Amino acid sequence: MTPDEFRKIGYRVVDWIADYRAQISELPVMASTAPGAVKAHLPSDPPENPESFDQIFRDLDEIIVPGLTHWQHPRFFGYFPANSMLASVLGDYLSTGLGVVGISWQSSPALTELEEVVTDWMRRMMGLSSEWSGAIQDTASTSTLVSLLCAREKATKYGLDRGGLQAEEHPLVVYVTAQTHSSVEKAALLAGFGRNNLRVVGHDRGYAMSVQALRDAVERDIRAGAIPAAIVATTGTTATTALDPIAAIAEVARARGIWLHVDAAMAGSAMILPECRWMWEGVERADSLVVNAHKWLGVAVDCSLYYVRDTEHLVRVMSTSPSYLKSAADARVKNLRDWGLPLGRRFRALKLWLLIREQGVAGLQARIRRDHENAKWFVAQVGAAPGWRVLAPVPLQTVCVRHEPPGVEGDALDRHTLGWVERVNQSGGAYLTPAALDGRWMVRVSIGSALTEKEDVAVLWELMREKAEGH
Amino acid sequence: MTPDEFRKIGYRVVDWIADYRAQISELPVMASTAPGAVKAHLPSDPPENPESFDQIFRDLDEIIVPGLTHWQHPRFFGYFPANSMLASVLGDYLSTGLGVVGISWQSSPALTELEEVVTDWMRRMMGLSSEWSGAIQDTASTSTLVSLLCAREKATKYGLDRGGLQAEEHPLVVYVTAQTHSSVEKAALLAGFGRNNLRVVGHDRGYAMSVQALRDAVERDIRAGAIPAAIVATTGTTATTALDPIAAIAEVARARGIWLHVDAAMAGSAMILPECRWMWEGVERADSLVVNAHKWLGVAVDCSLYYVRDTEHLVRVMSTSPSYLKSAADARVKNLRDWGLPLGRRFRALKLWLLIREQGVAGLQARIRRDHENAKWFVAQVGAAPGWRVLAPVPLQTVCVRHEPPGVEGDALDRHTLGWVERVNQSGGAYLTPAALDGRWMVRVSIGSALTEKEDVAVLWELMREKAEGH
Repeated sequence: MTPDEFRKIGYRVVDWIADYRAQISELPVMASTAPGAVKAHLPSDPPENPESFDQIFRDLDEIIVPGLTHWQHPRFFGYFPANSMLASVLGDYLSTGLGVVGISWQSSPALTELEEVVTDWMRRMMGLSSEWSGAIQDTASTSTLVSLLCAREKATKYGLDRGGLQAEEHPLVVYVTAQTHSSVEKAALLAGFGRNNLRVVGHDRGYAMSVQALRDAVERDIRAGAIPAAIVATTGTTATTALDPIAAIAEVARARGIWLHVDAAMAGSAMILPECRWMWEGVERADSLVVNAHKWLGVAVDCSLYYVRDTEHLVRVMSTSPSYLKSAADARVKNLRDWGLPLGRRFRALKLWLLIREQGVAGLQARIRRDHENAKWFVAQVGAAPGWRVLAPVPLQTVCVRHEPPGVEGDALDRHTLGWVERVNQSGGAYLTPAALDGRWMVRVSIGSALTEKEDVAVLWELMREKAEGH
Repeated sequence: MTPDEFRKIGYRVVDWIADYRAQISELPVMASTAPGAVKAHLPSDPPENPESFDQIFRDLDEIIVPGLTHWQHPRFFGYFPANSMLASVLGDYLSTGLGVVGISWQSSPALTELEEVVTDWMRRMMGLSSEWSGAIQDTASTSTLVSLLCAREKATKYGLDRGGLQAEEHPLVVYVTAQTHSSVEKAALLAGFGRNNLRVVGHDRGYAMSVQALRDAVERDIRAGAIPAAIVATTGTTATTALDPIAAIAEVARARGIWLHVDAAMAGSAMILPECRWMWEGVERADSLVVNAHKWLGVAVDCSLYYVRDTEHLVRVMSTSPSYLKSAADARVKNLRDWGLPLGRRFRALKLWLLIREQGVAGLQARIRRDHENAKWFVAQVGAAPGWRVLAPVPLQTVCVRHEPPGVEGDALDRHTLGWVERVNQSGGAYLTPAALDGRWMVRVSIGSALTEKEDVAVLWELMREKAEGH
């Protein structure tokens, strides 16, 4: 494909995406395709000779789009908002088109330095002190794994340079709650801590970590000869956006020299609003922090911002320096390969840069505030409707609800809940994802897609009542 | 930004990239920017209000492009070819524009199923048996880490579900050579094995792993009470594209129940040529395999293909299944979150799909064959030039050379080598990266950028002679 052919088909791609985005509200939100249906329409062998873009666009329309759940839909209320705002999309287009790779500063200086600049912009936007330095990872799963590896190596005084985790006499322990995201458990297991050394400490009635339970668990472990290595506190848990009390947890961490990681993957975007920053009060005393700019904020996936205070420690844990990656500039520059797992990186900073510039901080703030207002409005509707219940505090944009008809309890209530959610999703009118809370299914209404206006929330609410109440 | 604004500015982005690609051969290959220079041109504070795209495009032209090393340049001979071919770029544009996220099959069925289809296409293209199943990871660093975690958990019989690596009585050992990529060492250390348990076994004069040395090391470890857990063999090492003898290594692995991971990150692309497959003979007896489609093959970064034979084991090591990710379809589908580290994934399959369809298998094969021919031609030139030496076998597209003027030896030779490479790079006419081999600097000429024709190699050769021989 020559640059001129690229120009021609590129226009067509841009048109196709523009049309997709313009008409997205008319599509059923959730894919209703059956398992294997997409595969069944695709040849099992690759084409020996070139195929035309006419054929490719036809397949996109006929096979791919019907097989998608539309995350950018105004009535997507599932999982979390993963806004791929159009300015950010264009930033990513620049990145892919340039086709440069960051494996050391010299391999593309602007890639590294723009990443430094925009992660610092985000630091300022979230009101964090200049003690923090950031880099872009793919997802919070990875950021959290990096954090737990740093915690492990701090506790073992760089055991990786000797016998690894295999040579430790005293087990290292990680502390979470039952509300902590599953990726933390995964990271702890992959980092080698072992499930037996993952302490699930209690939470309060608002689903936030109990500091007393944490303190008790830490003391118990110390008495038993174990070494408390890491606490993962969450600002905005996945199920209910509960807020672990960071300041009090940080005190426990500091008193015992424990690494504190703050998972603000979802809620971190709200910290660009000064009025929300009480939610992570104490964050300045954490060791590491993850905020996914590819969620509520609006950057196309993947763009997970990972911040640390002790950059020297991070680099010492992550760095390798083979001859073929050395350059004369190394002593004076940031080599982002030493800030995470992968050696090579895309020019991800461009998509964050374009989003912030096209929206301005004020524009981003206004949208997040709109979503807060919509969530409040929705809570008021649910609270006023007989048989409906809001199950957890709503500090942000996720509302946990259940319809509890009189006399329906226990497993029958679970069946009722899963039943009406499925009917909502199958209707195509909106998309919701259920989750378990206190052992029972409930429904998370996650408000914050970029296109979601109050009217969309109103449509959802009508649909929920129709499908749950059966009228 | 509305879809119509996106259309307008999207065209402009496409034009900008088309122009960049059309004129790329006129740019100096290596960025000559000084450390900090890009940062110095950017404001330290984010804009409060929206900025215009005119300003953004001006910054791209004036600040970003001059700060880039141009990986898509026809005279980029550094590191490895990271071809971001234009059809693949358009596939990525579709992905980013659609803005869907894969966190479970149901969250976007077509994302998962197309990934199954195209990784299977690639399996067939590389002549691998149907025992292999693949998934896309970001980079080989991550693929290798996943592999070593699987090896660790196989050796500990899923110790992650108990005391983790911390509870192991007998140290687990990983085997590599000095030519193995640095990401393997990094993965082994991060997986907790510890540097003391990383065995660097000897290699032969062609820089390939010595099977005898491997066998000796394994037996020595077993006698000492250690547990050989993983061998990482490389098809096409980074420095010289050496070929570890996979078949013989697999025998050692099988005899002792050791996990065998084959790193074909770079060379795997060549396996779409039947005449190259002798290079990884025995690969069918490995446990895991990584091929970076974002290198020589031509997919925009990042697109690392990770194949395993025992998918059940992989999923058991990687899987988490919290309530908010469950769906009714789970039992009948592939949930790719259980195939790697991150929970969420981009729709990466699109860029591989478009590349293969636009090129056809025959088109991709022809280009790889062209690069082989160019490498052979270059070897002939170097071999015929007095004072120049080819230092290692050239099975693929990387030629390791040194200019050795009479009487210049030892450190003086290193200074000479680094000096002329720097002069080549500073000239802007071509880009090369040096590496150490047997303790001395040499120069890797990595041929295989999509735009690189024989004339470009000839220009490089002229430039090398000019800068090294000083005439």
